[in-house]
Parts: sequence; C-alpha cells; structure tokens
Amino acid sequence: MAERLVVIGADAAGMTAASLARRRNRDLEVVAYERTAHASYAACGEPYHVAGLVDPLERLVARTPEQFARAGIALRLRHEVTAIDVERGVVTVRDLEEGRSFDTGYDRLLVTTGARAFVPPIEGRELPGVFTLRTLDDAAALRAIAAGGTGRAVVVGGGYIGLEIAEAFSLRSWQVTILEGTDSLLPRTLDPDLGNRVAEAVRAMGIEVRTGAMVTRIGGKDAARSVGFGDEEIPADVVVLGLGSRPVVEPAAAAGIPLGETGAIAVDDHQRTKVDGVWAAGDCAETRHRVSGAAVNYHLGTVANKTGRIAGINLGGGDAAFLGVLGTAITKIHDLEIASTGLREGDAVAAGFSTVSATVEGMTAAHYWPGATAMTVRVTAERGSGRLLGAQIVGGPGAGKRIDTFATAIWAGMRADELAWVDLAYAPPFSPVWDLVAIAARKAAQAAR
Amino acid sequence: MAERLVVIGADAAGMTAASLARRRNRDLEVVAYERTAHASYAACGEPYHVAGLVDPLERLVARTPEQFARAGIALRLRHEVTAIDVERGVVTVRDLEEGRSFDTGYDRLLVTTGARAFVPPIEGRELPGVFTLRTLDDAAALRAIAAGGTGRAVVVGGGYIGLEIAEAFSLRSWQVTILEGTDSLLPRTLDPDLGNRVAEAVRAMGIEVRTGAMVTRIGGKDAARSVGFGDEEIPADVVVLGLGSRPVVEPAAAAGIPLGETGAIAVDDHQRTKVDGVWAAGDCAETRHRVSGAAVNYHLGTVANKTGRIAGINLGGGDAAFLGVLGTAITKIHDLEIASTGLREGDAVAAGFSTVSATVEGMTAAHYWPGATAMTVRVTAERGSGRLLGAQIVGGPGAGKRIDTFATAIWAGMRADELAWVDLAYAPPFSPVWDLVAIAARKAAQAAR
Repeated sequence: MAERLVVIGADAAGMTAASLARRRNRDLEVVAYERTAHASYAACGEPYHVAGLVDPLERLVARTPEQFARAGIALRLRHEVTAIDVERGVVTVRDLEEGRSFDTGYDRLLVTTGARAFVPPIEGRELPGVFTLRTLDDAAALRAIAAGGTGRAVVVGGGYIGLEIAEAFSLRSWQVTILEGTDSLLPRTLDPDLGNRVAEAVRAMGIEVRTGAMVTRIGGKDAARSVGFGDEEIPADVVVLGLGSRPVVEPAAAAGIPLGETGAIAVDDHQRTKVDGVWAAGDCAETRHRVSGAAVNYHLGTVANKTGRIAGINLGGGDAAFLGVLGTAITKIHDLEIASTGLREGDAVAAGFSTVSATVEGMTAAHYWPGATAMTVRVTAERGSGRLLGAQIVGGPGAGKRIDTFATAIWAGMRADELAWVDLAYAPPFSPVWDLVAIAARKAAQAAR
Repeated sequence: MAERLVVIGADAAGMTAASLARRRNRDLEVVAYERTAHASYAACGEPYHVAGLVDPLERLVARTPEQFARAGIALRLRHEVTAIDVERGVVTVRDLEEGRSFDTGYDRLLVTTGARAFVPPIEGRELPGVFTLRTLDDAAALRAIAAGGTGRAVVVGGGYIGLEIAEAFSLRSWQVTILEGTDSLLPRTLDPDLGNRVAEAVRAMGIEVRTGAMVTRIGGKDAARSVGFGDEEIPADVVVLGLGSRPVVEPAAAAGIPLGETGAIAVDDHQRTKVDGVWAAGDCAETRHRVSGAAVNYHLGTVANKTGRIAGINLGGGDAAFLGVLGTAITKIHDLEIASTGLREGDAVAAGFSTVSATVEGMTAAHYWPGATAMTVRVTAERGSGRLLGAQIVGGPGAGKRIDTFATAIWAGMRADELAWVDLAYAPPFSPVWDLVAIAARKAAQAAR
C-alpha cells in the first residue's frame, strides 16, 4: 500500500517538500492542508504589491492548486489542522468552508505551519486601521489603504519589514513615520552605528524615523488615529505593525512534539522532529547557525525553501542533511541597500568568540564612474585566527548583493586574509580596482593579528 | 647607506609597489621612470572617457607626481629606461624631454613595464584614423574623434575592450560595427554559444556584429576609409583595434632577465625574477592560474594591483606570496553584463581535468520584480569530485558581480554541491529565492556525480 504524507501548511517549505518528495517517490500519496485560501506565495513580495510595483497580487502566487494536482499533490485550502495525534498517526482537520471537522491518517507528517506576525499587547491593537503584513489578505488590505489616498502612515518597528512597508507608503506619497523601540534601525541585523547611519539616510528620503520609541498604545475611537510612546502621541491614518514574526507551533506543541530553546520545533539535520514519522521545516522549525552552532529560528524565504528541500529529499527516500544558516539577509529602501550575514561582533562575543571588526568606507564603483555611490562594509573576524565570522553592508545600488561573497567565504571557513586576495571582478562600472569586500577583509585580517 | 629601488614603469603595479615599499621602509630611496607623460592612471576607465561619461580625462589619474613626491617617491615622467645592466646594477635612462641619456644605479630593480596594444601586421594599420586604446593619449585622441561628430566606427576585435569601445561610440550615436576574427564574441572568456548570445544581444542594441571576420587590411589614401576581411570591405570613418595587448618585455629580455612560457617575465610567488635583485609585477610579469596551475599572463588591473602589492611588501622588507589568479573579469555593454572566472570547459580539459558543465537560465531578481532581467549562468566542475573550476555569467543589471561568489568559492576550493547550499542573500529586488548561482551549482553537482 502507498505511504501517505500529510503536510500541514502549504507555503514555501511545505510545498517544496511535497513536490520533491513526490518527484522522488511516485507511490507517495501527498495531501497538504492549508488554513488560508492561498498556497505557495511569496510573502517577501508583499510590500511591493502595497507599493504598486507588483500587480496583480496573484503574481506572488508561485503555483496554483491545479498545478499541484497535476504534480500529484492534493492541496486542500481553507483546511486547518486543529490537532495531531502522533500515537495513532492521525490529524484532525477542520474544513473552514464547510464548517465540519474530520480525522485523517498519515504514515509521515510534515509540519510546516510557518509563522505569524508578532503583535505585542499594545493597547488599541484591535482597532480598524491597524495592520500587519504577512498573508496575502494582509497585503490586499494594506494595498487598498495605500492606494486609496494619502495621509500619515505610522510603521511600528524598524526592521526589514518595517523599512519595506515605509518604502511602500513613501512611494505612494504618504507621510511616513517609523517608530523603533530600540536605539537604532535594524537592531537585529546591523550594529547600532550602522543602523543609525541607515536612519540618517532614511530621514534624508523624507521619512521620519524615531528610535527609542517603544510603542505602548494606539489611540482612536472607531479607528486608529494615533500611536503613543512615552508621553508622545503621533497622529496616524494607518498603523502598520512590523515587529517580526513568531513560529506557529501550537498544533505541534499540543501533540507533544518537542520544541527547541528558540521556541520553534526542534529538528535534526534531516528535518526530523523528536517524534518518529514527524518532520518539520520552514519558519516553524529550528535551524543551526553555521558559525555559532547555536539553535536559531530565522523566518526567511531562503531558509524555508532550503529546509523544505531537505525534508522533501528525505521524505522521498533520499538522504540529505541541512548544513545550517548564516542568517544572510538583504533589503533596500529606495536606493539604499542593506545586507548582513553571519555574526555581528556582539553576537560573536555572546557565542564565545574573541573578535575584531574592521569598517571601511568606499564606493560601489570606480570613483570616477557616474553611478558610483558610497558604501560601508564591516567585517567581523575571530581574533588570532582571522576566521571570518560576519559582515554588514550599507550602500547604494550594487552594494547589497556583495554580501554573497562574504556568505560564501564564511560558509567555506575562510580567514579574512584569504578573502583579501581573492580574484574578485573589477571594471569601472562595477567596482574600484580593489573591491571594498577585499579591502574590508584585509583590514580585518590586520586587526585580527 | 640607504638602499635604492628603481622602478621601470609608473602605472598600477609599479606605483603600488613603490608606495608600499616606501611605507614599510622609510630609508628606501625610490625613483620611478615612466616613458609617457602620465603615471598611475586607470586604463580601464578610458572607454568611458571616450563615451563622455568620465570627464575630464585627469579623473582617471589616481595620483599626481606631487603626491608621489610627498610620499617620498621620485617620479620621472617622460623618462624611458632603454637598457638594464644587471651585472653592474645600472639602468640607462633616456630623458625624452631633454633628449639626453644617463646611467643610474640601483640596489633593487622593479620591472613594471606593462603592456602595449597588440597591432597585427594588417595592411594600412599606420593610416590616420586607425586607433588603439591603451594610453591616456590614445583616450584623448579617440575621444576627440568620438565627440567631434558621428559616422561609421569599425571596431576590430570582439573582446572586452572591443565591446567597451563599441559601447562608447554607440552612446555617441555612431553607427558601429564589431569585426571579430573568431566565430563568437569574447572568445577568450566565454564559451562560443554564450559569446553568440552576447552577439545577438549586441545586435539588438543596433550595433552590427560580424564574427569570423579576420581583418587583413585597412583601406584609404590619406586616412582609413574601410576595413577589409575576406572579400568584403566595410566603410569606416574611424577604425579602432581592440585586439588585446602584449607584455612589454624588451628591456628585461635584452638584459637577460628570463621570460616564461607565456612570453612575459618569469617570476616566483614573491615577484622575484630569476635575476638577483630584480623583481617584476603587473602586465609584463607571469602569474599562476590558481585552478590549472599554469603560467598565465593576464593584463588586468586587479592582477597588476595585487602583484604590485606583493612586490611592494617584499621590497619593503616583508614577506608576502602571491596566491595566483582566476582570471576573473567583468564588463558591460549598455545593459548587458558579462563576467567570467576560472576555467571554461575547454580550458579545463586542456589543463587535464575531466569536466562537466551546467547552464541555467533565470532572472536577476524575483520573476515579479519590475526590474528583473534574464540571466544565464554556466558552471564548470570537475567530474567525480564536483570541485568548482569556472563560471560564466551573461545577463542584465545585477548579473555580473555575482561572479564574485563563484570566484570566492573556487578560490576556497569548494565543490559545486557545497556552493549550492550556501546561505546567499534573497529579497525580491535582488534575487529569486534560490539565486541562480546556487541553482547552477546544484545542477553542476548533479552532473558531476
């Protein structure tokens, strides 16, 4: 008899795994239950739909239920898995359209329940006019607001998603304020001084940035009209909470599938949970940081796709190990690109490294090239050995994707002095003759001695 | 008594070395003789001066004689070293302004005589209206032509410099024809099918491209009026020869300083020639290919700067070894970016490798991103081991600099399957969720098995 794989959650990790498992094992019966009305969509593209750069919203949907059906995967939208019985190998599914529940068995279970937007207990958070941006429905709703006129948009949270939402409203000529609770923008991926540099650049774009602004309340009677922190109230016509996300682990946790120290589902390098026959991948699952070795839980499309791929290979009868993450991330706000990979100095110290950092300022292209823009590169390395630990980049067009060079070098375990001599590409429109990546690596190597 | 370092040729390699040696050893007396009226200029920027994108020409000069003087380096422009006597440690210098010659001694000699444009014995090559582009004077002359009107520009040679000159005249609304003797564009850095793809794209830009067009004659009475190959004659108002360059080795060779198999000066990994006290770096010196181990002689600004740096450290009393080159190169013509690193399949086979290649087509950004453009990535790996040997990229804005990721991976000795899982950066404006670099590496890994 054919084995039956049940997938809970039909986004990047789940559907990547389902597709691969099915491709490797044509006898596998695969059914995926998805709570929302959409599967396999590109959440990272949502800010650009709000901005009006990506239309229609359906362009963010990678594959339709019909396409999955042709690939032999039964995709059930608007079906929520409400309980897992790992003893019996049964899940309880609620058909949200029909309003009825049923039980269905599995031989193997893949938990890819993803993450939800984090909403702290801020007073007034339930008022109309307060949004998060996670699902396609969120994107459609926020798009309608953004396109429906202009006004004052207040973005709570100065991380990646906050900047992207700020850009979207800014492109639509809204007056935008970013309120960040910590003392600098992008506090989870940039060192504070670089975060402050981003804040300055964002202000120069006409977007108000307030740091140290820990929001405690949203004011308004029938709709959000203001956002409050300390003794200040900022007027708002729309409020968007961009405060990150939390893994959705309730069904798994209730079933006794162990969570890890991050609060996400604990898995081994094959994406197996600690319960036989149950696997997890994507935002709801832990991964290992390749440099620190620590358990981490990043909600990144790259990680979801990679862990989904690993799960799929293994569920399809293969043998693949996930080798960890560096937390590489990139974004832009207007013409400013921001990227990071690996450990920052503070992260590295916390992980037990003795570290040095080098920061260099330069240009994205030859100094005489008309399109050359300023960029800053920071490299963190281990004191003594010079082993590369992390890098951060802030700069104009062409700056950000240079982070891949660092990611590759860190992945390979290279020392800063090795990266300093790599034969990187140069032509005036692309780089100074010594790319800033190499200069930063050289300075870090010198500092590490 | 202070040691005396004489440098022959005051461009990237020579002046990098001079500056570093002097910085490390303040007692060193450094004098640099330069045949032309310019030192330390960015030859790679010249096409962009011709195009009118970089003005004035002096922006291409990195440092002036006054700046070198302040750094303790005596720079003598318009001084040509006509002979080297390695037995006595003396060079004969001709002062081209004064028309007199003199001898001067050295304790250490650095030969950085660079390269000259290659001009094959084509009939009519001495006619007015026939140009090469190498020196600043070349650039000024070609610029005057390009800016002085429009007409028919014929570029002989479809390599990097040929494409860059073609772009320059195209930007100035000239009618441009590229004549390439081999069967595809960029024959030294791209596989023929990719070179043909570039040719198609260049034609779509309104530039005529003829391959298999081995030019044998330039016609005209008082000035070049046509370019001939086979039985065809192409009308021309200006002819630019972009046929590469050859190392300038005559003074060294005449002095008995041994050349290597490439015809450039043989050096060890410290940039020492086989003659005691004589060093060489830059375009006139051989280097080692890091993958093939073969002696190579690339005329690239990156290599000149790096080997100059190595020479300078060692001449200043340090101990640095040059670790070789991958031949990484990048260029663009209008919006098309072209880059390569390491060995192509043919190169690798010639170097004794058993190889596989994988070619993937994709986008520079998420498929729904408005600025996404097509790109092609080819990866060559060793059969069996999967060790990365080389990569080629052709694509729109953002494609080319991805070559650095390959260069870093190849430098580190990574296998294709390792690169396939590196945590590369993703956000919709920058990449699909699986960067094409990773997809190409994965396909190459599969092919290598």
